[in-house]
Amino acid sequence: MAVYTHVRPAELDAFLAPFGIGPVTSFKGIAEGVENSNYLLKTDDASYILTLYEKRVDPADLPFYLGLMDFLANAGVRTARPLKDKSGALLGELCGRPAALIEFLEGVSAEPPSTIQARATAKAMAELHLAGASFPMSRANGLGSKEWAGLLKGVAPQLEKIEQGLREELEVNLKETLASWPHGLPAGVIHADLFPDNVLLKDGAVSGLIDFYFACNDTYAYDLAVMINAWCFEDGEFRSELSHAILEGYQSARPLSGDEMKALPILAQGAAIRFILTRAIDWINRDPGALVVPKDPRALLPNLRFHGTAKPSAYGAIGQ
Amino acid sequence: MAVYTHVRPAELDAFLAPFGIGPVTSFKGIAEGVENSNYLLKTDDASYILTLYEKRVDPADLPFYLGLMDFLANAGVRTARPLKDKSGALLGELCGRPAALIEFLEGVSAEPPSTIQARATAKAMAELHLAGASFPMSRANGLGSKEWAGLLKGVAPQLEKIEQGLREELEVNLKETLASWPHGLPAGVIHADLFPDNVLLKDGAVSGLIDFYFACNDTYAYDLAVMINAWCFEDGEFRSELSHAILEGYQSARPLSGDEMKALPILAQGAAIRFILTRAIDWINRDPGALVVPKDPRALLPNLRFHGTAKPSAYGAIGQ
Repeated sequence: MAVYTHVRPAELDAFLAPFGIGPVTSFKGIAEGVENSNYLLKTDDASYILTLYEKRVDPADLPFYLGLMDFLANAGVRTARPLKDKSGALLGELCGRPAALIEFLEGVSAEPPSTIQARATAKAMAELHLAGASFPMSRANGLGSKEWAGLLKGVAPQLEKIEQGLREELEVNLKETLASWPHGLPAGVIHADLFPDNVLLKDGAVSGLIDFYFACNDTYAYDLAVMINAWCFEDGEFRSELSHAILEGYQSARPLSGDEMKALPILAQGAAIRFILTRAIDWINRDPGALVVPKDPRALLPNLRFHGTAKPSAYGAIGQ
Repeated sequence: MAVYTHVRPAELDAFLAPFGIGPVTSFKGIAEGVENSNYLLKTDDASYILTLYEKRVDPADLPFYLGLMDFLANAGVRTARPLKDKSGALLGELCGRPAALIEFLEGVSAEPPSTIQARATAKAMAELHLAGASFPMSRANGLGSKEWAGLLKGVAPQLEKIEQGLREELEVNLKETLASWPHGLPAGVIHADLFPDNVLLKDGAVSGLIDFYFACNDTYAYDLAVMINAWCFEDGEFRSELSHAILEGYQSARPLSGDEMKALPILAQGAAIRFILTRAIDWINRDPGALVVPKDPRALLPNLRFHGTAKPSAYGAIGQ
């Protein structure tokens, strides 16, 4: 990322005062996340993540993200809990930026994921879907299926710089995907970005889902389709045992309907297109010296090709 | 910085095995340091910093840096201690890079420093000088006074892009500095980069000196002159109370001789030139999108001008 806000101790102390936590014993900038400045902060009693929201996050969306994290944590879903200050606010200001203090969660990401980790994470996703159904706020998916044609149009002239034929492949696939896009499937709050690096695990159990900054209201099975893209391909090969574990884990908390199951290939194709498009945009606009190297959009082309010919049963079975 | 090595869990586990520490419960890249990739790593029992040495550090110097940190920690100096693996080695390899596992130290940097913090840090520096005298290895100062003329020559044509008149000011000052440079003062192992961000403090006491990657053999009083430049100027104003506290704290462990005291202004002028030069080089070669923004070389011009006319007594008194 191009921005990393430097926080001085006096500013930090002023920000922290209303949270009533003990004196800071350690404070280190962490190199995670492309969108925000994150610090790991310790007191004698606990550890926290301090997040300063930089330009790429719309401040108007922060009450939704932080409210959702708080709501889900209270409902027993394993997510990082934002702290409330003495006035009950989840959001403060630090160095001229919106900022939040979030409970630190132990755990490491699954890289590469095991079936045990995939099953546990998918179950946590289903629990998020179930609990989120009573969350009172909503937020449209700014990167949902209705946005993809516009995104593709914007980036199309530069796609050939990434790979020859990429523009045509995406145009053909997007047309096919949108023509068959399912409507009326069960929908509600979804994570929308549940890649392995957004899940912390400890001893095979989920210690926390993190990074809710793409969360929105959309089709539940689309969230699962994102996860299948993010977890089930290794060096371009589909790892069916991981996908089966995901469907098993998810359905142990929320069984899929026949319509949801039938829609999986097209939802997964759409999810592949969504991430290829946003990665292509980041790739084209990357800072050559940035700390976080953008992900290669081409890494998802095998996914796109796989989903285009896959049958629903390739992903797993219904009602496990 | 332009490089940040991504470590995968399987590689990490293989690297850690010979250290015999417990399973990793958390692992986060930290955004500190311009030269290396650093991770904060936790187990159930302890926290560590994992450092992967990137291109800018000469691997041939690592046995000196790590050996010194180990030696000083054993001698009771408050420094971060590198861990030895089962074979006794301080240095391993991870992701094709030299890598070391270093004890995590609590504490935060002094920003801006208080006189209490300055006094405590200067005393710790003197203890480093005393203990380091029996360290068996040595390393020439690659950024010492003999190197400055060459550094200036290399960067001179581009200095006017930074500030008009900068080239001439540095050339005049360097000539004057080298003509009066003291020889034969007490010398040994020095830190050579003891800026506030390289000291962790807790409750006014030093919890650790860190970042020994410029440590070398050079004049002790030059180390003090670096610290005076790094700690005693705020918005271009010399803060004499901090400098007095530094001389007091240092001399509480190692009193300065009359010759050392007399040489302070010229050593401080030289230290200012050294940091202006290396900052100018980093400034000219900066990556526009890098996470760590290089420091502005112009911030040290008031230092240079101050030292050029200062008497030794301006910095504090001898034998306190």
